[in-house]
Amino acid sequence: MTDHYYAVIMAGGGGTRLWPLSRQARPKQMLALFDERSLFQTSVERLNGVFSCDDIFVVTVEEQARQLREQSPDVPIEQFIIEPMPRGTASVVGLAAVALQQRDPQAVMAILTSDHFIGNEPGFRDHLRAAFDVAQEGHLVTLGITPTFPSTGMGYIQRGELLGVYRDLNVYRALKFKEKPNAARAKEMISSGDHTWNSGMFVWRVDRILAEFERQMPALYAGLMEIAAAWNRPDRQEAIESVWAGLKAETIDYGIMEGAENMAVIPASGLEWSDVGSWDSLFEVLEGDENGNIVMGTQQHLGLDTKDSLVYLNEEHRLIVTIGVSNLIVVDTGDVLLVCPIDQAQRVREVVKKLKEKNNNGYV
Amino acid sequence: MTDHYYAVIMAGGGGTRLWPLSRQARPKQMLALFDERSLFQTSVERLNGVFSCDDIFVVTVEEQARQLREQSPDVPIEQFIIEPMPRGTASVVGLAAVALQQRDPQAVMAILTSDHFIGNEPGFRDHLRAAFDVAQEGHLVTLGITPTFPSTGMGYIQRGELLGVYRDLNVYRALKFKEKPNAARAKEMISSGDHTWNSGMFVWRVDRILAEFERQMPALYAGLMEIAAAWNRPDRQEAIESVWAGLKAETIDYGIMEGAENMAVIPASGLEWSDVGSWDSLFEVLEGDENGNIVMGTQQHLGLDTKDSLVYLNEEHRLIVTIGVSNLIVVDTGDVLLVCPIDQAQRVREVVKKLKEKNNNGYV
Repeated sequence: MTDHYYAVIMAGGGGTRLWPLSRQARPKQMLALFDERSLFQTSVERLNGVFSCDDIFVVTVEEQARQLREQSPDVPIEQFIIEPMPRGTASVVGLAAVALQQRDPQAVMAILTSDHFIGNEPGFRDHLRAAFDVAQEGHLVTLGITPTFPSTGMGYIQRGELLGVYRDLNVYRALKFKEKPNAARAKEMISSGDHTWNSGMFVWRVDRILAEFERQMPALYAGLMEIAAAWNRPDRQEAIESVWAGLKAETIDYGIMEGAENMAVIPASGLEWSDVGSWDSLFEVLEGDENGNIVMGTQQHLGLDTKDSLVYLNEEHRLIVTIGVSNLIVVDTGDVLLVCPIDQAQRVREVVKKLKEKNNNGYV
Repeated sequence: MTDHYYAVIMAGGGGTRLWPLSRQARPKQMLALFDERSLFQTSVERLNGVFSCDDIFVVTVEEQARQLREQSPDVPIEQFIIEPMPRGTASVVGLAAVALQQRDPQAVMAILTSDHFIGNEPGFRDHLRAAFDVAQEGHLVTLGITPTFPSTGMGYIQRGELLGVYRDLNVYRALKFKEKPNAARAKEMISSGDHTWNSGMFVWRVDRILAEFERQMPALYAGLMEIAAAWNRPDRQEAIESVWAGLKAETIDYGIMEGAENMAVIPASGLEWSDVGSWDSLFEVLEGDENGNIVMGTQQHLGLDTKDSLVYLNEEHRLIVTIGVSNLIVVDTGDVLLVCPIDQAQRVREVVKKLKEKNNNGYV
């Protein structure tokens, strides 16, 4: 790749969608779900061959910075950019764009997630390379995911005409970003054939995205320029904090992409991608045993007539026994045990909400 | 009651039907299921008003003796009779009969369980008093339980003609003891109206039961006479051990009651009795909350759309969360977690068997 290509990994999220395993103090990107590496480590390592660690930036929050640095010691410490507090992905992108512009005014940046699963890593790298080629020409590029079902949990992108073929991949004009739809709308979009899921992974030139900020989010842009002015001064972090104190949280999708010009989408199929957005999503990316069961962690599980269920246990001296159950999730994190049918897995959010209401924050 | 009435509590069982809570080293009678007292303690204390502790004997095994003595310190230590190893209830009854005959040749003994639930204790005491009156006349008396459903897990007793009314209770001749039936046979017996469940609680004169041993189980009787001869010698326990080494295990039901003469049964209703034979039986004796849920132990349970389920947890710093489940059992003993539908609760025996096969005896 050229000298001007960079990766920015967003690693400051604090979701609890895999609660009780993910917590405020142990967000999803910190979890080692699929092997001994955390999802964050995997997200860095899958860039091997496209980027050297010198060209990788990480945006996170103070509470997570130390642990992330330890997990990826090859990424230079000064390339961990600290947000004073999470203010949505728009501000993450803006801050990273400022940092990159200081380093290289011709920078082209990929905005990448830190907590997704991608089974086909070579395929992912091919798509990323193509996206950089397209972005270099001035497009705001999004990696689209070929939908596998009418999800109401994903955002969608409608594509327009073919812009060209880059590295054997079709690249289309992106016509419209659409928020999470209702079930009927999701079915329509799936059957239309011209929609992909929004992966949350983007590639664009720094000058192009900053121009979009200036046009569409002028308040944020003004703040970003203050920060840029302070970048090489000792009060850089104070400048960031002062700007951040006045920001309202906004996503890049809503703040920029819904109204942006010159957008492209690269539909990606075969990436074996998942946002690992809830326990049931693990059934999409992990293969069950002969009974369809997924057993994670210590493997201390004894099942009688147990089918299509997920058991997670991380304690050695403990045994989980299930008898006559199917489509059930049993997650044991030591301090919390969750039992629920797979189709109710999304409701852990309600539990987290209830625990907060009860001030039972030790479990959140 | 008269000076010749005694209670013998059988407390040597090692069942694992409430596994994983009950274990070989922590059998059911040791468990505090319903309040802070163990089932054994409750079994002793419910005799208050019928017996003083000086007239209560406990038959158990060496491994359990210390703990049982600690739990009921008012029962004189020499009245804990130690079986060298469990050999069925026939040998328990025989050994207790020998012990009582040594103390009082006119003794009338009640054989009582240590691991059952009886909600109506005054009612139980009334039935016990009536049973002693009947036994004093030479009958072998069994407390029958009025059946509430066609159980295939209980033994049944068919009754004959009315023998009389004792303390306002009807007492019948007992015609026949019947082993656990199949489902069709159980239904027949229920609809016949003349069958009760065998509670496993009996009252009889010591001379009468020893005569039955002599007639029906002569080998055991001969051993019991050896023990009787050694009773006041220093080698009493050696004599018991020597006899026990040659015994084959037998129940009092099969060994004696099925062929005994002059039997009576007192059908008992309204005792709120349960043998607590499996997790589902707790629903018979405990009232659920407004959702039909039974939460036992630390009450650290958060349920969303959770109905007619049982949750047991005995650790303070642990939370069980259930979402969208019904008729489920979740039992957490710290080292083992069991999840199974209520109607599969009896299958914990299969689990225990499997664990033994795998030499995973720490969990048994």
